[in-house]
Amino acid sequence: MRKVYLDNAATTPLLPEVREAMMPYLGDVFGNPSSLHDWGDGAREAVETARAQVAGLIGAKPEEIIFTGSGTEANNLAVKGLALAQQAKGKHVVVSAIEHFSVLHSARTLEKWGFEISEVAVDKYGLVDPEDVRRILRKDTALVSIMQANGEVGTIEPIAEIARITKKREIPFHTDAIAAAGTIPSDVGELGVDALSLAGNQFYGPKGVGALWVRKGLRLMPILDGGIQEGGRRAGTENVAAIAGLGKAAALARNDAVKRVKQLTPLRDRLLKELPAKIERVVVTGHPQNRLPGHASFCVEFIEGEAMLMLLNSQGIAVSSGSACTSRALKASHVLIAMGISHELAQGSILFTLGIDNTAQDIDYVLETMPPIVDRLRQMSPLYSKFTKASKGGK
Amino acid sequence: MRKVYLDNAATTPLLPEVREAMMPYLGDVFGNPSSLHDWGDGAREAVETARAQVAGLIGAKPEEIIFTGSGTEANNLAVKGLALAQQAKGKHVVVSAIEHFSVLHSARTLEKWGFEISEVAVDKYGLVDPEDVRRILRKDTALVSIMQANGEVGTIEPIAEIARITKKREIPFHTDAIAAAGTIPSDVGELGVDALSLAGNQFYGPKGVGALWVRKGLRLMPILDGGIQEGGRRAGTENVAAIAGLGKAAALARNDAVKRVKQLTPLRDRLLKELPAKIERVVVTGHPQNRLPGHASFCVEFIEGEAMLMLLNSQGIAVSSGSACTSRALKASHVLIAMGISHELAQGSILFTLGIDNTAQDIDYVLETMPPIVDRLRQMSPLYSKFTKASKGGK
Repeated sequence: MRKVYLDNAATTPLLPEVREAMMPYLGDVFGNPSSLHDWGDGAREAVETARAQVAGLIGAKPEEIIFTGSGTEANNLAVKGLALAQQAKGKHVVVSAIEHFSVLHSARTLEKWGFEISEVAVDKYGLVDPEDVRRILRKDTALVSIMQANGEVGTIEPIAEIARITKKREIPFHTDAIAAAGTIPSDVGELGVDALSLAGNQFYGPKGVGALWVRKGLRLMPILDGGIQEGGRRAGTENVAAIAGLGKAAALARNDAVKRVKQLTPLRDRLLKELPAKIERVVVTGHPQNRLPGHASFCVEFIEGEAMLMLLNSQGIAVSSGSACTSRALKASHVLIAMGISHELAQGSILFTLGIDNTAQDIDYVLETMPPIVDRLRQMSPLYSKFTKASKGGK
Repeated sequence: MRKVYLDNAATTPLLPEVREAMMPYLGDVFGNPSSLHDWGDGAREAVETARAQVAGLIGAKPEEIIFTGSGTEANNLAVKGLALAQQAKGKHVVVSAIEHFSVLHSARTLEKWGFEISEVAVDKYGLVDPEDVRRILRKDTALVSIMQANGEVGTIEPIAEIARITKKREIPFHTDAIAAAGTIPSDVGELGVDALSLAGNQFYGPKGVGALWVRKGLRLMPILDGGIQEGGRRAGTENVAAIAGLGKAAALARNDAVKRVKQLTPLRDRLLKELPAKIERVVVTGHPQNRLPGHASFCVEFIEGEAMLMLLNSQGIAVSSGSACTSRALKASHVLIAMGISHELAQGSILFTLGIDNTAQDIDYVLETMPPIVDRLRQMSPLYSKFTKASKGGK
């Protein structure tokens, strides 16, 4: 059976070059970067090389990069660490309604600590209106956190426009670029943000490593206390191998950015166009144009996304029905609900996220395999039979 | 030149079997454990296998193990997470004076959040007296955190005795077993504790992964918010490769425990006995008997530990002058100061931590190489020349 992995939003595979870059640090160069001897030096050099590579990807200064243990940790550090450090200014924090749970639930924790959280709504495409951000800002706003792109519906937010507003008001602006960085340009100068999170396993780097960029001079409260690693901003022995891998993945992403977008976009566009043509009552979710190059997401009416996922899996196709971080919660996606999609329709969410290993044949296979699966599932759906009867009745 | 790594407290090398166990998850089995398809299943099975292996090392139930991104994170989660979850009971937390900074600085953060911290003193060997713990407990004590063994001086604490006291008072007791687990028995049943931290890179596993064991039923507040990984207790995509490596390292440590102790103890004992015999005015730090099997630590009078470290490094020998997490802070160790050692003498701290790759020839080389280095450094020390003049004058 053909094997087609279309869940790159959950995690990408490791590129062979990335694995190669990690291997010395799982072998002879095993020292602790904090150690003052030769064994430490080799490890420290690897970390500093990677820091420069990650900085290069986003147009930042290396000393502004803080390595973390995951994208989730980077988002926690950004939201909690920046809000706590700015709390003398005020205790109001603005997020969008479609942030990842690592941002939204960090905001919930801030709420327990006496902060007030405002959620900016999105339109039916999942877009934030910068004017809505302007209106929601207050004198005591300590932080704005809005994602660069949404991993569930692929929508790319107008970050630079929002940044012009926050900059005028001198309010720190963090963007969760985990779904975006390494895939589309995330240059911190062009975006105009003050802090940005990214994660290795979103662009062919390893799991277990993320990074937070914070503009020099902006105060940050650490969330992991201990040693003085990462300039005292994140304690804990550095995961040298994973950091080296992240650095290599960043260098490759920077180099191959244009090529990757050119490869992914037409494959994505075929799915976006041909799936709704082949299957009745399928709607594209997310923005029709402003979306991640490898990202095709839909809601299929009268279907449970999980069931569709299982049957596609039995045919060798890996997809998702929402964010991997919430997939086991089996709740309707807060992203789709915020976009005004009904709970019922949101249950039929399905998400194809392409990677650089995918080919036109993979898309052919999906377009062939999926319609009979949808048919089969709909045959079992009482709602669907009710609907078809009603349609026939109406004719 | 001979290369002798004697800084296993900073980090151990990876065993080849551990690296082998990691490789599939840096290759074909790259899925996200949260994904509901086959790619996710392979990754999830790896995580669950490792969970059982880590549980096996410490005599715990697999579902009680929470994987983290480092030992430091495990300690942060334990100290903050347990204290915050018990705060209805009270806001008093007890730690020992010689805890790692990941515990001590977490306690400092709790202080900012309205908790009161009591530090239990230690004797000249670095030992906590259980009676001191008993005396310091209060009605509102929410948590006690005392390490199983100290990584800087090797002293093993009387955890089981302390646990008998905390248990009677129904106060949760966490032990930082990062320096101990995988090296000496850390069976949670025998120790009688309620929570225990460990880290992969302390027993030939990878960096970037730790674990916190928390007794079933004991409440814990997460410190990283987001997805529902690790039973909702630690958000973030699992570092599958590192977790698999930690599991393998735990299985090997459990299997080889007796053999390793037998190998390390006589080598350590030669250092403890012969270095002070070969070099005048060298004192052993830590307990003479109750100490980690591979751990030999000293203070060398009239010498800067850093300088000694550098010169030993130039002869191919890697040692440390304190905890790797603080080595770049260049301050006198809080552990030595708490043991009543003067700031002056504490500057001459040197720490040999042996690993399973070390041989008798390594020890010969150290015993040969170190005395002339100490002589050379003392020749440059104004304090030493003052001392020798005074001694001569006294004769």
